[in-house]
Amino acid sequence: MRVTILAHEQFPGRAKTAQGILRYADYDVVAVLDRDRAGERVSAHIPDVQDAPIVAGMDDVDQPVDALVIGIAPIGGGFEESWRPDVRTALERGCDVISGLHFFLEDDEEFVELAAEHGGDLWDVRKPHDELTVSEGVAADVSADVVCTVGTDCSVGKMTASMELVEAAREAGHDAAVIPTGQTGIVVEGWGNPIDRVVSDFTAGAVEEMIVEKGDDHDLLVVEGQGSIVHPAYSAVTCGILHGSMADKLVLCHDAEREVIHGYESFELPPIPTYVDLYESLAAPVREADVVAGMLNTAGLDGDDDARDAIATFEDELGGAATDPIRFSAEEILEAIV
Amino acid sequence: MRVTILAHEQFPGRAKTAQGILRYADYDVVAVLDRDRAGERVSAHIPDVQDAPIVAGMDDVDQPVDALVIGIAPIGGGFEESWRPDVRTALERGCDVISGLHFFLEDDEEFVELAAEHGGDLWDVRKPHDELTVSEGVAADVSADVVCTVGTDCSVGKMTASMELVEAAREAGHDAAVIPTGQTGIVVEGWGNPIDRVVSDFTAGAVEEMIVEKGDDHDLLVVEGQGSIVHPAYSAVTCGILHGSMADKLVLCHDAEREVIHGYESFELPPIPTYVDLYESLAAPVREADVVAGMLNTAGLDGDDDARDAIATFEDELGGAATDPIRFSAEEILEAIV
Repeated sequence: MRVTILAHEQFPGRAKTAQGILRYADYDVVAVLDRDRAGERVSAHIPDVQDAPIVAGMDDVDQPVDALVIGIAPIGGGFEESWRPDVRTALERGCDVISGLHFFLEDDEEFVELAAEHGGDLWDVRKPHDELTVSEGVAADVSADVVCTVGTDCSVGKMTASMELVEAAREAGHDAAVIPTGQTGIVVEGWGNPIDRVVSDFTAGAVEEMIVEKGDDHDLLVVEGQGSIVHPAYSAVTCGILHGSMADKLVLCHDAEREVIHGYESFELPPIPTYVDLYESLAAPVREADVVAGMLNTAGLDGDDDARDAIATFEDELGGAATDPIRFSAEEILEAIV
Repeated sequence: MRVTILAHEQFPGRAKTAQGILRYADYDVVAVLDRDRAGERVSAHIPDVQDAPIVAGMDDVDQPVDALVIGIAPIGGGFEESWRPDVRTALERGCDVISGLHFFLEDDEEFVELAAEHGGDLWDVRKPHDELTVSEGVAADVSADVVCTVGTDCSVGKMTASMELVEAAREAGHDAAVIPTGQTGIVVEGWGNPIDRVVSDFTAGAVEEMIVEKGDDHDLLVVEGQGSIVHPAYSAVTCGILHGSMADKLVLCHDAEREVIHGYESFELPPIPTYVDLYESLAAPVREADVVAGMLNTAGLDGDDDARDAIATFEDELGGAATDPIRFSAEEILEAIV
């Protein structure tokens, strides 16, 4: 599929979904739309992902495109009216439009009409489907091993860890798949349940549904975790994913520089061993699972030596092997997992 | 407010909401509707709550009524068409209709029209309001002490414990209030957020909203817990309530005869000390809270002696005072809480 990614004024740093697509998706990225960086190229900013030109808008894209993906999410998840011309142009060209915003494309009359007129689809990634229900507690019955990424906070690299782990497992010959639970993962994989938007009673059930669907087709499933079990706002989602996945093993993700909960600065992160105990003891009544490895985001550290030191400390604290899957490679910890 | 309670074919045993209203609500119950028990009285079944006649339907209620409450919830939470004549009659008489079903009265064309025509209101207790959002982690800032009831499973008596605790505290001179989180609690109290129906990301936020709203008007808030932290399906809701409430103290509720998760019989309940550790260690990163007391449902035991023995064992296991608030009195453990 050939896509353009809308990332106006936020590429690359604040365009998490755009980055995820460039790095992991099986899409051919024709262009990134960022009016602030028109004329530049992706490779100038992120060297190790697929390259693409950056243009000011859909009107500057001459090649055929199958879909426009909204690759950014402003605070609040609303739709910026300045993006409307790009979405309109895409729909008029018959493209699909894919969005992970809280705002739903399907609630916009103009978009609905244009999509119908020109034969494009609107895919609101964050809109849960209607048949979700409560968990039956059966995810452990699938034949695949199930690994769940868990975190010390939001935005510490759980999605990245999940993707890298699956890639490394595939390279080692395993039949591995990601179970996507958030908007970027869902856009990248092309399917999934947006766990943070489902009815709270169905949190575990929405994870279980995906595992039951895929669990007998693969050897290894890596469930993309969300939030953190110590997060004042999002721990419910984390807990539902942990229990709904009935994981066999857990991988703890952390950012080397994180000391307090992002956006909730009065809440300090507990020590790493506390996380290990908490995730393991919370998992146990539903399904015994150990934290077997760690993923440390060291992007904020200067140089590989400092990163290695930080990883060594993290390994001591969690009692298992760890790496930074971007700076180094998820392959380093694969043995602990498969 | 003068109400009738619809409980066809399920009173008293399977009419949890009806029982809750009869026992705790500040409503004058004019009649219970149960076509299987027409001509009987409430007092013949539940001696220690307000008495009312049981009749076959709304047509048999001669007195003025302000509202009809749906007091039962069939599996699946749907609306039984055999109830329609009663709801219709109530609306034609200008009554409000209150429902905690998954099915929404507001989605029924006939009910909407009748309500509009005769001036009654439809209140779907389980429909979350539109302004819910994520928690800010500020529930602990209110002046009231916050106590949260937590449980070993669903349906072990958390709602009852919360109501009884508040009544006992009030009798002892405290200004106490319940924070209702489920349909029965909400109907009884006349307000509240149905936590199991909110968007999963807003689970903690929906609890916090209520505590912030009421927390400076009372000395003591008792948050009605839901589910259990070890429940394969509902633990997300439990976790969100625990962290959203930022409780100062926890009260562990248990059923003396429960050994496996209700409806999930392959999952054994862990030992009581495991629950204490789990709830306390999970609460701590957001807000330190100890399990200070227990509530044991001994309805399934014969005689007070057996109940006292079971309570003594429960006290040993949890390391605090416990009682059965229905068989005995919540007053017995009040000292541990206020």
